[in-house]
Amino acid sequence: MTKPFIHPTALAESLEIGEGTRVWAFSHILNGARVGRNCNIGDHCFIESGAVVGDNVTLKNGNMVWEGVELADGVFVGPNVLFTNDLHPRSPRLPQAHGRYTEKEKWLVPTLIERGAALGAGAVIIAGVKVGEYATVGAGAVVTRPVAPHALVVGNPARRIGWVCRCGKSLKFQRCRAKCSECGGSFSLTKEGVRGDQHSR
Amino acid sequence: MTKPFIHPTALAESLEIGEGTRVWAFSHILNGARVGRNCNIGDHCFIESGAVVGDNVTLKNGNMVWEGVELADGVFVGPNVLFTNDLHPRSPRLPQAHGRYTEKEKWLVPTLIERGAALGAGAVIIAGVKVGEYATVGAGAVVTRPVAPHALVVGNPARRIGWVCRCGKSLKFQRCRAKCSECGGSFSLTKEGVRGDQHSR
Amino acid sequence: MTKPFIHPTALAESLEIGEGTRVWAFSHILNGARVGRNCNIGDHCFIESGAVVGDNVTLKNGNMVWEGVELADGVFVGPNVLFTNDLHPRSPRLPQAHGRYTEKEKWLVPTLIERGAALGAGAVIIAGVKVGEYATVGAGAVVTRPVAPHALVVGNPARRIGWVCRCGKSLKFQRCRAKCSECGGSFSLTKEGVRGDQHSR
Repeated sequence: MTKPFIHPTALAESLEIGEGTRVWAFSHILNGARVGRNCNIGDHCFIESGAVVGDNVTLKNGNMVWEGVELADGVFVGPNVLFTNDLHPRSPRLPQAHGRYTEKEKWLVPTLIERGAALGAGAVIIAGVKVGEYATVGAGAVVTRPVAPHALVVGNPARRIGWVCRCGKSLKFQRCRAKCSECGGSFSLTKEGVRGDQHSR
Repeated sequence: MTKPFIHPTALAESLEIGEGTRVWAFSHILNGARVGRNCNIGDHCFIESGAVVGDNVTLKNGNMVWEGVELADGVFVGPNVLFTNDLHPRSPRLPQAHGRYTEKEKWLVPTLIERGAALGAGAVIIAGVKVGEYATVGAGAVVTRPVAPHALVVGNPARRIGWVCRCGKSLKFQRCRAKCSECGGSFSLTKEGVRGDQHSR
Repeated sequence: MTKPFIHPTALAESLEIGEGTRVWAFSHILNGARVGRNCNIGDHCFIESGAVVGDNVTLKNGNMVWEGVELADGVFVGPNVLFTNDLHPRSPRLPQAHGRYTEKEKWLVPTLIERGAALGAGAVIIAGVKVGEYATVGAGAVVTRPVAPHALVVGNPARRIGWVCRCGKSLKFQRCRAKCSECGGSFSLTKEGVRGDQHSR
């Protein structure tokens, strides 16, 4: 591991950027943002004070990670994915809405993207949603409800159309069991959702 | 009020940026753009010559306000909202389309976002649409038709699923009357749409 | 023709940028990207090594053209259009997915946008799709299947709702023939799709 690489045009104001992480052109990481080790943060990104990014995360270009958003280890965020942290937005400068923005408790709603999940290009994640580990959100999907671990969701609003392996490949279940054609991982489909079999974890 | 704050990496070429307005990193305001007072313009924004932004407007990161687009006072624009100003786009450099781009009258279609409205993350606003005052466009919605004042619209194409208060909170109408649970504003639902009651204006 | 114009804040690392092309503020063209002549590349764009952009192309602001994406001559790309080049994305830094990213053949899927096509604001183009010549993809559409030449597609997922002329105008077919009300081009509708009549090519 090496210390972080910061592109000469990037603004890295945070003191908490992990070893081996690279921050590319015209990106801006605010003081108070936490970014883990060995991440890749593309051009034109923005990470706000209070946002949390784990280790081994890939942020493609044009992403903004707001306060209240947490990306766990190994998450993939495609280009221009949109997080939100307010369910009833108004301009805080609008007199009729100003009161609500005087305290964070009144408007800030957190979002959690769990380990190894992938968010496709331009996906929109409504505040308050949890995307489960190793789930995949298709490009252009608008996620309004929680996404189960290993689920594949697409559309506006996003609906589940399948299941995916830890490696990202689609899983075909037969009699509630599936083996990944790509990496060989094996899974069971139960009432609680998809579970990796112990020997393949 | 104070004079505008321009981040050292921002390009503010316009002479018409109002008092107290802040322009953040890597944003670009072209000469001939008009921006009002007490606005907040996030990172990576672009405001074109001929665009008009009122007072107390919040532009989250990654927004582009084109010529032909007018944002009235107190509007909220979530991250990466997309305005358009051409209904039949082609590259103006394409020989078969070049003629249409020789005069603005042939292609430029205006858009108006009225006072206090909010446009959610990644919403797309088709040129020629008017979004009424205090309306809310949900994140990821594609707005192809006018939006009534106080309407809440979502989806692709956007459809109305409810009504919202000036403060942003959803309104529940009973017998054509509603009182906001957040700010106490009272409203009537008429054939012409939602009207704020006089004493609560 | 003149040599390319590069805005002082832009990073143009490629040696293959054609005559007369303009690259605007905060954009980044990587070494190994190929950009043709007489293009206009707006603010906050990114063109990756291996991407190919033809002549007379208009890239509005905020676009990213990845390796594997080819834009033919005269293409229009509205603001924040999203290309992709991987159908099963994961963070390449995730141990369970790392192997797939060791060789491009395992994940890179190409996309081709043919001559004179237009991609509306915020459209999402799934990797592997071909958009035919002079087609128009509506703003906010999510393109998951090939788009025929001259087709107009909208929605998520995108579906064809009409046909358009080379100049961008909608075509109304009567008995399988149409004449453009804007530029006078004439077309036939056959089993193979829309064909420009010989004398109007």
